[in-house]
Amino acid sequence: MNESDLLARIYARSAGLSRFAQVVAGPGHDCAVVDAGADGGGSRLLLKVDQVVMGRHVRPGTPVDLIGRKAVARAVSDIAAAGGRPLAALAGAVVPSAFDADGLFDAVFQWAAHWGCPLVGGDISGGSEMAVSIAVVGLPHATRGPVLRSGARPGDEVWVTGRLGGSYDAATGLGRHLTFEPRLAEAAWLCDALGEGLRAMMDLSDGLGRDAARLARASGVRVRVEAGTLPSHEGVDWRRAMRDGEDYELLFVVGAGASERWRRTAEAAGGRTPTGVPLTRIGRMEAGQGACVVEFDGRDEDASEWGWEHGE
Amino acid sequence: MNESDLLARIYARSAGLSRFAQVVAGPGHDCAVVDAGADGGGSRLLLKVDQVVMGRHVRPGTPVDLIGRKAVARAVSDIAAAGGRPLAALAGAVVPSAFDADGLFDAVFQWAAHWGCPLVGGDISGGSEMAVSIAVVGLPHATRGPVLRSGARPGDEVWVTGRLGGSYDAATGLGRHLTFEPRLAEAAWLCDALGEGLRAMMDLSDGLGRDAARLARASGVRVRVEAGTLPSHEGVDWRRAMRDGEDYELLFVVGAGASERWRRTAEAAGGRTPTGVPLTRIGRMEAGQGACVVEFDGRDEDASEWGWEHGE
Repeated sequence: MNESDLLARIYARSAGLSRFAQVVAGPGHDCAVVDAGADGGGSRLLLKVDQVVMGRHVRPGTPVDLIGRKAVARAVSDIAAAGGRPLAALAGAVVPSAFDADGLFDAVFQWAAHWGCPLVGGDISGGSEMAVSIAVVGLPHATRGPVLRSGARPGDEVWVTGRLGGSYDAATGLGRHLTFEPRLAEAAWLCDALGEGLRAMMDLSDGLGRDAARLARASGVRVRVEAGTLPSHEGVDWRRAMRDGEDYELLFVVGAGASERWRRTAEAAGGRTPTGVPLTRIGRMEAGQGACVVEFDGRDEDASEWGWEHGE
Repeated sequence: MNESDLLARIYARSAGLSRFAQVVAGPGHDCAVVDAGADGGGSRLLLKVDQVVMGRHVRPGTPVDLIGRKAVARAVSDIAAAGGRPLAALAGAVVPSAFDADGLFDAVFQWAAHWGCPLVGGDISGGSEMAVSIAVVGLPHATRGPVLRSGARPGDEVWVTGRLGGSYDAATGLGRHLTFEPRLAEAAWLCDALGEGLRAMMDLSDGLGRDAARLARASGVRVRVEAGTLPSHEGVDWRRAMRDGEDYELLFVVGAGASERWRRTAEAAGGRTPTGVPLTRIGRMEAGQGACVVEFDGRDEDASEWGWEHGE
């Protein structure tokens, strides 16, 4: 079973979650949203789990600090994509006897603290293959609330932070997929600046084509990307920029009503976030059925499956 | 590195957690306690992660429903031990291609829902060895608040729910370690009935000797168990009752000032919880340094290392 099959299965079952009053948003967004308010003040939580498995997400020989870093950063990036801030982290790890468990623990501990979600619990087990699973609890933006994938409407504009592609160096197994910076500050700034004008957001982990199609599907629209606008890393053409995974940049949707104001804001900021990360408009939302279409030289191509399929 | 070494390391580092205002209780209790109040109503959360790894916690050939059940039940049992109720669950799973990923997902989904913590997110990866990591978020008891391991004082009484020992059938690999019922209702009833008189609590996963010593250590006391009082399963002598792991019963401490009232309550209830689980006083707390002493035929033995050491 690959991840899409599993996701399909989760979605099919998610209907069953509706009997739980605490589930505000279940699987199908970057984070689940849960209401912890029954005993408290109606506070909402963002919940996310991600894994790093040896031979799948990292190669043997990858420095253990970067393994721990990536495991934490993946989940933190999803909290960012929901506009939130990390609160606390938990780690489950399977560690072969020859592996540097100590160093892995130190890395997870330090990186979790670095991004503001102290490691408050963990479970470790022996095993034949290193795998580390990081769960992060976060709090949504205080005024905007949780940003989901499902709020995009036809006519909205599609933007992206940073540059795309080439995150994984096939020769060494190293690269930005190990050292990316989760876009926490940038997402918070977008929430501040756009408020409800920030209609939907996600982080790009599996390639723009595939991920944008997922957001479009969650919103019941179609996304059109203009190939010529794509901000890519040096030496990366637009097709690779759409196919490469693990950019962990933010794909975000600005409501049609907010787009004029937003363009002025972005221009006034020199086309960058206050942290210096480029902001680029790459397309728009149209009426349609959950696909990603890329437009190049006046021709359309369906890019909905351009990207990386987990479990393949 | 075995689990005790890792725990020692976590404790040593936990001092570093004090700079995070949200950490109410870090590693060293059954659950971490985190304050989500900055943006909400001061609500506290219980956080816990546990794993089930093939060949370590379950044998090859164990029915997949029982694997999923155990993975969820282990974490839920810790939420119970903190007096809480489960709110939501996350799952990270590594699944070899020949393994029934579908069945595992179904089991985790259903058992999480069964115990009130719907599965709201997950991550699945291929790999050579099945491992499933379950993180559960819970809410503390509304009036008693989170119950920790650290509240016991000399003179307090030590009680246990249910019966001990023989949870793992060495011939088949099956047994109660796969089918135990997390003591959610019982823990809630204890919080209701005892309030602040419930000084400390934990679930018994690694053997009474080792676990009771951990609670004593967290409280800065010594625990004395009377061997003759131990409620054990049929065919289990008192030494095995103290050494066998995976009972997932509650070990709880009743404050000296509440003990008279509590004994009357327990007697009036026929020595059982309203759910029919036996309640047994097995010892008391004394001044001392984090050890578990068992008294048999007037002799004392140090039982602080009687039990199961992870990672051995």
